[in-house]
Amino acid sequence: MKTRIDPARIVGRRALLRGALAAAGIASLPGLPKSAQAQATASTGIEPKPWMTTPGRGVGSSPYGVPSRFESDVVRRATEHAPTPLSSWSFTPLDRLNGIITPNGLVFERHHAGIPEIDPDQHRLAIHGLVERPIVMTMDDILRLPAVSQIRFLECAGNSYAEVLRMPRSKAVQFSHGLLSSCEWTGVPLSTVLAEAGVKPEAKWVLAEGADAAAMARSIPIEKALDDTLVVYAQNGEMLRPEQGYPLRLLVPGYEGNLSIKWLRRLKLGMKPWHTRDETSKYSDLMPDGTVRQFTLIMEAKSVITRPSGGHILQARGFHEISGLAWSGRGRISRVDASAGGDRNWHRARLDEPILPKALTRFRFPWEWRGAPALLQSRAIDETGYVQPTREQLIAARGTNSEDHFNAIHTWRVDTNGEVTNALIR
Amino acid sequence: MKTRIDPARIVGRRALLRGALAAAGIASLPGLPKSAQAQATASTGIEPKPWMTTPGRGVGSSPYGVPSRFESDVVRRATEHAPTPLSSWSFTPLDRLNGIITPNGLVFERHHAGIPEIDPDQHRLAIHGLVERPIVMTMDDILRLPAVSQIRFLECAGNSYAEVLRMPRSKAVQFSHGLLSSCEWTGVPLSTVLAEAGVKPEAKWVLAEGADAAAMARSIPIEKALDDTLVVYAQNGEMLRPEQGYPLRLLVPGYEGNLSIKWLRRLKLGMKPWHTRDETSKYSDLMPDGTVRQFTLIMEAKSVITRPSGGHILQARGFHEISGLAWSGRGRISRVDASAGGDRNWHRARLDEPILPKALTRFRFPWEWRGAPALLQSRAIDETGYVQPTREQLIAARGTNSEDHFNAIHTWRVDTNGEVTNALIR
Repeated sequence: MKTRIDPARIVGRRALLRGALAAAGIASLPGLPKSAQAQATASTGIEPKPWMTTPGRGVGSSPYGVPSRFESDVVRRATEHAPTPLSSWSFTPLDRLNGIITPNGLVFERHHAGIPEIDPDQHRLAIHGLVERPIVMTMDDILRLPAVSQIRFLECAGNSYAEVLRMPRSKAVQFSHGLLSSCEWTGVPLSTVLAEAGVKPEAKWVLAEGADAAAMARSIPIEKALDDTLVVYAQNGEMLRPEQGYPLRLLVPGYEGNLSIKWLRRLKLGMKPWHTRDETSKYSDLMPDGTVRQFTLIMEAKSVITRPSGGHILQARGFHEISGLAWSGRGRISRVDASAGGDRNWHRARLDEPILPKALTRFRFPWEWRGAPALLQSRAIDETGYVQPTREQLIAARGTNSEDHFNAIHTWRVDTNGEVTNALIR
Repeated sequence: MKTRIDPARIVGRRALLRGALAAAGIASLPGLPKSAQAQATASTGIEPKPWMTTPGRGVGSSPYGVPSRFESDVVRRATEHAPTPLSSWSFTPLDRLNGIITPNGLVFERHHAGIPEIDPDQHRLAIHGLVERPIVMTMDDILRLPAVSQIRFLECAGNSYAEVLRMPRSKAVQFSHGLLSSCEWTGVPLSTVLAEAGVKPEAKWVLAEGADAAAMARSIPIEKALDDTLVVYAQNGEMLRPEQGYPLRLLVPGYEGNLSIKWLRRLKLGMKPWHTRDETSKYSDLMPDGTVRQFTLIMEAKSVITRPSGGHILQARGFHEISGLAWSGRGRISRVDASAGGDRNWHRARLDEPILPKALTRFRFPWEWRGAPALLQSRAIDETGYVQPTREQLIAARGTNSEDHFNAIHTWRVDTNGEVTNALIR
């Protein structure tokens, strides 16, 4: 269906300012527009539709269901900036999503040698290096171990890279922030898996390597490996999708996504990081002075408004619920502020429960659009007290040599005709 | 991949009894079986697989992703007991799922005239009867209102009907308990939508009617309508699936599933329940004395072990994590007890966070199988103190005239050959 947002109601400025509407979770608003009311009669005023008089498709016609054909434009879209689809990425359509769960079919992708098709019965996980007993595990070995399910976000280190460069394609939130997804992941704590092999005391880093043709590999500090890292086999209830590492991946919560190695085949314990190709040719941040900062692992607090967002057109003045996502690699979101004035006159947004650590948090904020140009902004504050910085602050600190870890406050511009655009793009 | 569970480890009985393994969330277990260790070498001992040397499928090859072909047997399965697929039901494969989210493609179905294909731009919601202003709303009208996202379960009133009748097909949990699913739902509080029309003080019930050809309709008490009932347009992030009411449905949390009217087209306010066809021809409970109990709305606390479960075969003695689901229509699960002894010597199971009201809760319990016959059971206790009853208690109270609301403790039998079967079926 259309993304057109067609508000028809005026909410009092007072209600807007005190946020009472949002806080109460209910709305006591004046009636619908005359045009809608005129359609109602003492019965219902709805003309019978074909689907009200003719039986539909039978049960069992869709053993594994798919979306309505009216939603066929809600898809991942690949970048135009990769030289080959084998080493490329695709974006989650955040502007069309709700809540904090990303459906598995729409989870963003970043692969370095395409998507391998792995037979789980043939898949193996090796644990070696500084361990007491090198071992090789089958999927059956892993599936019988004590597991846990947790909702956690995954964000590519390069999410919002187009914002640094003011790339025209980042006019929609799918392209400005869509290297971000969130699932309920199920797996075994990495600490449990490593205990099978017995970690030697001198081991300080873990090398994780994928079974894809790129053998994508990253070094993970032992403290993080033994803390909340999971060896994951399921997402949103079902087994991992091929694009997400079927049949086995790491999940390193709160860290840049590329550490959550997909198609996980090898864990090696060692004393130092490996400086793999993936850690030197990329996933390093070039600083303004020309030095390189390695191992910028934690994704700092960030937020973005997803509705309305770039490409949407407000169809009428009046009430709009502004909605978006906030997240932090350091823990829970404690607050989200929103502003529609462009003056950064922040108002506290309402947060949907549950607010989980290292997970997306959905925020909502009531807004009355009176037809004037507006600037819509949000900023996240996490439980450590960290405040999402402005673009100016971030660039002053880091320059623009690196496009990774760009977590600045984002601004959508609303023009008098209702068109919503990325304020960075002229 | 296979559901075969192939544990290879022996956990001490003491560890089992104190549940230390589960409580700590980590396992300090002896090494893997010799066969696995023998595969490991100083490097990894893994033979290169084809997918490690040949690039895979490119990014963008799957704009809306699908599961691995190795998971093609993880599907909904329709009942064999319905006279026509137009009025039938299909079951969620609980034995193959993890965590508390049901992927949208696997959410159970119960339709009364098939699945209508509705154009959202043509869809309307009428609100009439005892209201100040009868109104008709478009999808755009609804999408601009303040919304909320919540994870809640949906269970058919008739879930576990096959258990009452000891039907042979209920040998697998998909058929004994698979009219149960759980999603993150996004929508507008029904109280907000009703406020648009203005509820008259004398209105005590709300009639909700679907736009399917059956015009499925139920009466909902006004207290519940104004409490936590939602008018829902999204599930697990994306717009509703056609089978789940696209583009609009009710969600009446904790109540029998059929009240959560799909393809919602009409809300009528009145002073008494309507006793619709759906409320008299079905969705009423026939008591032992021949009287009919109407409006048994709340789904009481219930639980079931999903792994291992009927159809699984334990491949070896030793450690198994027992895992299952618990839920209550009255609020949060406060405790789940599990037993493997058949003596109802209950041990407290570990619960995955977050524990949400009227949502599924995943429980886990460590078990050592020594090769003897075993009876695996779980019982849920909710925050009201209600304890899931035994089959004997439930039938003594309600008889077997009605197959609905059957929430008894379920028993899986493990035979000496490792085969897991429904203990009710000889």
